[in-house]
Amino acid sequence: MELKPTKPLSGFIELLPAAQRFVDECASRMLGVLKTAGFSYLDLPAIERAEVLTDKDNWDEIETQMYLFQKGDTKMGLRYDGTVGLSRYVAGHLNNLTFPFRASQFSKRYRGERAQRGRFREFYQMDMDIMDINSLSTNYDAEIIAVIQRTLDSVSEFIGDNYVLVGSRPFWDALFDYLKLTDDQKKEIFILIDKRDKIGDQEFAEWLSDVLKNEKLENEIKSVFTNGYTGFVNKSDNLDAAIKELDDFMKTLSNFGVKNAKIDLSVTRGLAYYTGLVFEFKLKSYPELGTAAGGGRYANLTEKFSKTKIIGVGAAIGFSRIFVGLLESGKIDLTQFENPIVAAVLPMGNFSVPFAVDVVNKLRAKNIVAVAYLDAEKKFKNQIEYADKIGAKFSLIIGEDEVKSKEISAKNMATGEQQKLSVADTVKLLKTA
Amino acid sequence: MELKPTKPLSGFIELLPAAQRFVDECASRMLGVLKTAGFSYLDLPAIERAEVLTDKDNWDEIETQMYLFQKGDTKMGLRYDGTVGLSRYVAGHLNNLTFPFRASQFSKRYRGERAQRGRFREFYQMDMDIMDINSLSTNYDAEIIAVIQRTLDSVSEFIGDNYVLVGSRPFWDALFDYLKLTDDQKKEIFILIDKRDKIGDQEFAEWLSDVLKNEKLENEIKSVFTNGYTGFVNKSDNLDAAIKELDDFMKTLSNFGVKNAKIDLSVTRGLAYYTGLVFEFKLKSYPELGTAAGGGRYANLTEKFSKTKIIGVGAAIGFSRIFVGLLESGKIDLTQFENPIVAAVLPMGNFSVPFAVDVVNKLRAKNIVAVAYLDAEKKFKNQIEYADKIGAKFSLIIGEDEVKSKEISAKNMATGEQQKLSVADTVKLLKTA
Repeated sequence: MELKPTKPLSGFIELLPAAQRFVDECASRMLGVLKTAGFSYLDLPAIERAEVLTDKDNWDEIETQMYLFQKGDTKMGLRYDGTVGLSRYVAGHLNNLTFPFRASQFSKRYRGERAQRGRFREFYQMDMDIMDINSLSTNYDAEIIAVIQRTLDSVSEFIGDNYVLVGSRPFWDALFDYLKLTDDQKKEIFILIDKRDKIGDQEFAEWLSDVLKNEKLENEIKSVFTNGYTGFVNKSDNLDAAIKELDDFMKTLSNFGVKNAKIDLSVTRGLAYYTGLVFEFKLKSYPELGTAAGGGRYANLTEKFSKTKIIGVGAAIGFSRIFVGLLESGKIDLTQFENPIVAAVLPMGNFSVPFAVDVVNKLRAKNIVAVAYLDAEKKFKNQIEYADKIGAKFSLIIGEDEVKSKEISAKNMATGEQQKLSVADTVKLLKTA
Repeated sequence: MELKPTKPLSGFIELLPAAQRFVDECASRMLGVLKTAGFSYLDLPAIERAEVLTDKDNWDEIETQMYLFQKGDTKMGLRYDGTVGLSRYVAGHLNNLTFPFRASQFSKRYRGERAQRGRFREFYQMDMDIMDINSLSTNYDAEIIAVIQRTLDSVSEFIGDNYVLVGSRPFWDALFDYLKLTDDQKKEIFILIDKRDKIGDQEFAEWLSDVLKNEKLENEIKSVFTNGYTGFVNKSDNLDAAIKELDDFMKTLSNFGVKNAKIDLSVTRGLAYYTGLVFEFKLKSYPELGTAAGGGRYANLTEKFSKTKIIGVGAAIGFSRIFVGLLESGKIDLTQFENPIVAAVLPMGNFSVPFAVDVVNKLRAKNIVAVAYLDAEKKFKNQIEYADKIGAKFSLIIGEDEVKSKEISAKNMATGEQQKLSVADTVKLLKTA
């Protein structure tokens, strides 16, 4: 019989136990930050109706990447982000939620794009959104950024320091109006700005020239990437309003204790649904990982689902991108995640299994990670090798003498030192091990 | 524009925040039990190659229920259980794992069956497996049962007490041989035994008669459901061996501290891959939820993937079946999960936002769940209503006086009592709230 393949599908992640413990530890710390910040954790379906997933303005690129399928008469597909499900959920539960509503998500998303290093077809993102009906202070934009920074800081021992770049969609809208661009030009240039990082300055300039065919206009737009908004103060009311909003917001960020923030108008977050301020987090030590988190403000989250206007600010942390990316780069020392077992209990024959099990249960009840080697008739040599391989800090050897005396021979696996202890004293010893 | 539907697809689960907190609390306690029992948590892909999912002996019924689809040239589908991925993973990492290997999983699975109450198309199961190469003591079967009971006991305040029924595949094999059934009869009767619970004694007897057409044989088989193995002692070596294994195992279970265990030979775990002892957990107070957990021993987990023989014992807890089932029955009092917010910080105008944010950050740093109402220009009435709606234990009101004095007006929302406190004293007060 031909054996089936043991590798997961290309672009899908599975980790060895120590690496899994590392990402679990990071997720746990980060979710802890969101919990104390009062976010309600939502666990939404991974499958949505096709009509819910598709027809999102300008998301053609993502649509071709979706996993769509049919069961019976129903067309459906796997979610590609956390926002589409959140929109549906919030619209469906308007009367059951208290606004401003804080939602967090941590779930797998699916994009069937060509697999390449750091691009996954199944990946985790951690989302947080704050939404209200009809209006929402930009203080909440600052709160979201501050909370993201705290989640990233909670794992700074692994990912180092971070910084945040803040952009403005209204600035570009005002600039395009001021430059009197046509609607087609606006759209094309916006796509181009989003691609600028990938294509580089030279190609950007050529494409820009193709679209505008006007050197003065081209230079005005290019000046934003070198001089920011400085060339556009006092040019139009809308430009001034966008610039003032940005400047005020940087002060607000500072009030919220956000560090390493600066304006970068080249940040636009692509063609997504954002309508206000937008932002991206990067890791100082790992520029190759790209954007660690990104988000912004949207004017009407639920318009496809409800006539109630939900305004909000939200962001997603690229969890797998960061942590699986770091693992793949070999830059994480997994030593501390290799060996979670504190005690390996080794019964020297089936007669000592009941006492061994009793000891294991007492240790586990005190939250001490303990396992017994239950093929108890196997030789001491096999059992102690197992204890060594799983990295147990202590081996608790239980032979005939120990069963009679109800004491345990506790062997420190690092020093080789061995002592006889009561069960209570063993618990005490291991509690601090 | 026509609005899109806000309900999730039929058979898919999404919960309001308090219900979600309830299931999260249960999952967290249960996973804690598995962690201290030394299980390595695995997070495997939800999508597998179609060839990995299908062609599992006798699983036709599940195959028609699978979500299968194609992307490019690759046929794939969503996992319907945790075992198929585990088999592939273990076979692919034989040299990177230490045996006996303890694996746990907690993940979504997918079955496109007709949706009905308590039957979900997307649902969580919590798996645990212990595997070794070539041999594994039945002590590990007892360990798995003991660990499942501890996970269920960790949430007994919600689900009440549990009991476990133990069956034996070898008993039925030996009985069929003793009764000299043909291979076709063996298979048909085994399917029938699995269906007995659903179809009832009367229909079972009729079908049995259709297959066997021999009243004496029919009565022998029916006697198992009334008298257990008592009619089959000293009939054949294989029967005696199976009976002795069961009796010995019940003593082992008692050594492992398992309570409420009894032999029930009608438990067979259907047509799955089990080859030895099998078991099912039920909840005493909730018979309508059916089987809370089930599992057993398999002789060769990885045979489709590897020539190395992996023998193991494993089980799955029907997490969504239990907890979403209980929520749907209305039997869970969610009061304690409604209001996780300890402090609502209310800034009386934008000038007090910086101090409010500072207070919020200090509280969160001490793991106190705190949110600020950041539309700070809104009236006191709106803000205190919000604090009331989210069930905040304390409102921390920050007006002009408070900003000047760096003190906080802390209002106990239950008693209405209000006092002025320093930030440090506020933290102290809320730490015990």
